[in-house]
Amino acid sequence: MLEKTTRMNYLYDFYQSLLTPKQRNYMSLYYLDDYSLGEIAEEYDVSRQAVYDNIKRTEAMLEDYEQKLLLFDKFQKRQKLLQKLKERIEQCCGKDEELFMLIEELEKLE
Amino acid sequence: MLEKTTRMNYLYDFYQSLLTPKQRNYMSLYYLDDYSLGEIAEEYDVSRQAVYDNIKRTEAMLEDYEQKLLLFDKFQKRQKLLQKLKERIEQCCGKDEELFMLIEELEKLE
Repeated sequence: MLEKTTRMNYLYDFYQSLLTPKQRNYMSLYYLDDYSLGEIAEEYDVSRQAVYDNIKRTEAMLEDYEQKLLLFDKFQKRQKLLQKLKERIEQCCGKDEELFMLIEELEKLE
Repeated sequence: MLEKTTRMNYLYDFYQSLLTPKQRNYMSLYYLDDYSLGEIAEEYDVSRQAVYDNIKRTEAMLEDYEQKLLLFDKFQKRQKLLQKLKERIEQCCGKDEELFMLIEELEKLE
């Protein structure tokens, strides 16, 4: 479950701009703020089932976007490569400030 | 016009998986294979206007995806940073094969 939550947090991060405001609200309360389905239902004055259905549909949409665009997958691969790059640079150039700043900028671009 | 074509080629590259098969067909004939609207219309036995409308709508969709996800924008920024990184590594470590292979893998991930 924790693994799923982490994955959904990442997918939400990458694709939230493609969701509707309602989908974003439910997802961020459920996954980021750890509200229960019942609490969200109360907050929006809808049934618990309606919230559940909306979140399930949104999760499926996020997985569908990921299957098509692979942003999370590429992010993970890039992070690994950048980590290796840092280690190799340190072996080879020591702590070169300019290089580390460039890598930091690359990391921030995600 | 050339600038627009280049931009559309890139946007198409990044977001084609989010388009319908028909949108992909028209866009790839028009932008990649340089067909005219009339030639596409003939190929699919539809009016020139129908092809034009479809392509215009698809272009707007691609720009909308780019506004939301910024994949082309981030790609350009990453390419510039990777270029600077290569130059600085060469100054500092010479032609280190392992480092250049890592950077090549990063470039391929786009």
